[in-house]
Amino acid sequence: MNKFYELILGGARSGKSRLAEQRAEETGMELLYLATATAGDAEMSERIRHHQERRQASENSRKWNLLEEPIRLAEILSENAQADRCILVDCLTLWISNCLHQDCWEQQKEALLTALEKLPGHIIFVSNETGMGVVPMGELTRQFVDESGFFHQQLAAVCDQVTLTVAGLPLTLKEP
Amino acid sequence: MNKFYELILGGARSGKSRLAEQRAEETGMELLYLATATAGDAEMSERIRHHQERRQASENSRKWNLLEEPIRLAEILSENAQADRCILVDCLTLWISNCLHQDCWEQQKEALLTALEKLPGHIIFVSNETGMGVVPMGELTRQFVDESGFFHQQLAAVCDQVTLTVAGLPLTLKEP
Amino acid sequence: MNKFYELILGGARSGKSRLAEQRAEETGMELLYLATATAGDAEMSERIRHHQERRQASENSRKWNLLEEPIRLAEILSENAQADRCILVDCLTLWISNCLHQDCWEQQKEALLTALEKLPGHIIFVSNETGMGVVPMGELTRQFVDESGFFHQQLAAVCDQVTLTVAGLPLTLKEP
Repeated sequence: MNKFYELILGGARSGKSRLAEQRAEETGMELLYLATATAGDAEMSERIRHHQERRQASENSRKWNLLEEPIRLAEILSENAQADRCILVDCLTLWISNCLHQDCWEQQKEALLTALEKLPGHIIFVSNETGMGVVPMGELTRQFVDESGFFHQQLAAVCDQVTLTVAGLPLTLKEP
Repeated sequence: MNKFYELILGGARSGKSRLAEQRAEETGMELLYLATATAGDAEMSERIRHHQERRQASENSRKWNLLEEPIRLAEILSENAQADRCILVDCLTLWISNCLHQDCWEQQKEALLTALEKLPGHIIFVSNETGMGVVPMGELTRQFVDESGFFHQQLAAVCDQVTLTVAGLPLTLKEP
Repeated sequence: MNKFYELILGGARSGKSRLAEQRAEETGMELLYLATATAGDAEMSERIRHHQERRQASENSRKWNLLEEPIRLAEILSENAQADRCILVDCLTLWISNCLHQDCWEQQKEALLTALEKLPGHIIFVSNETGMGVVPMGELTRQFVDESGFFHQQLAAVCDQVTLTVAGLPLTLKEP
């Protein structure tokens, strides 16, 4: 089976989504953007709009389809992954946070890791590196940081390529 | 025109200023230290004193001139940049924060990026990587993290060399 | 004298302890785990239990001895270091925090750096990278971030190998 998974990590505004979009476009495959953000509040809409504008700016060359799903990543990926398609999941951070808030993190995480044993095509995951600051005060935030960190480790282990972006520049952590 | 720009990023106390001073001294050029900190409060004075002591300790070999400017970086750089001079700007983080507080960030940022299209000599920018922790609560802090991240991307794109320091050790992100 | 010191830095849940344990086991030496955590509160016991479980899972192949010491690292290391032993110190972050709270940081830090001029055997230090987020508000937290950063620089300078872990993957900062 032809499959290639990659994880692009980076701090806030480190250029990880831009790198992910670039790499997706370079695959020459059919492109699907799977957004975990939904246009809930004003600030989030603004962030989504910003991402959309950038994708549109690059749409001269290629066409993106868009799906929004805040929680059921494994399900949506299973329905949509195919050998000649590149799916960009942006971003896992929000998905982890959504799942923790909805109390379904363990199930959703296991479902995704299980799905990744057999999904075809190219899948690019974008996620925030959030563990390199001071350990935050609240127990919920600490749980979020812990779960993000653990999950990044698990996902990195099954990805073919892992990259950290800093100031828009890629730092290779794992090579195919 | 002979010009070389570099960006040295790093976390708090990661050795970025020390590396920048070392690299500046290795250029063999005339040296100008452009500080964005001004001796406002007690803690900041203490930090400035610490930096000054380290520079003086290394002054056996070379001589630093000092300028302080919290906001108008583009203007001061334009007045002082010359082909045989190395200017160390330490640090951008404080400058970004100063500009945001004075509501002149957009203008100052554009002025600096425009100036960098034509300034001669060697310029080393030092800045804090602040985006790899948990996304902070306050809207102003979030704006600061966002603007820092975006600006690091823009600056890194026009710099000839970009380095991340961790535990005093340099990690090359972009090579000349 | 046969000695090899290494520092493994990483964000929260970045896989730094796992990497350290792996490397320790690969030395083929007698293994000593020096924990700076003591089972004070519920959350900390939980974290300690998690670490213990992982070590036990890998104990099929080798045997770990365990010591707990929250403050006097230099003393315990001096008593236990020997040419054919690998000591894993996990983690420095908590030790720095403990020392700051007990107002003995300067002495303990100097004692450790002095001890490291002559301790035999293989010593692996694990510590959290905490400086890449927004500079925290409280003066004590800021002091912790500053002291951690400075100490990582000093320790990295005397270590033979320094590694940053991200998503469970090692990034070499200094090679032997």
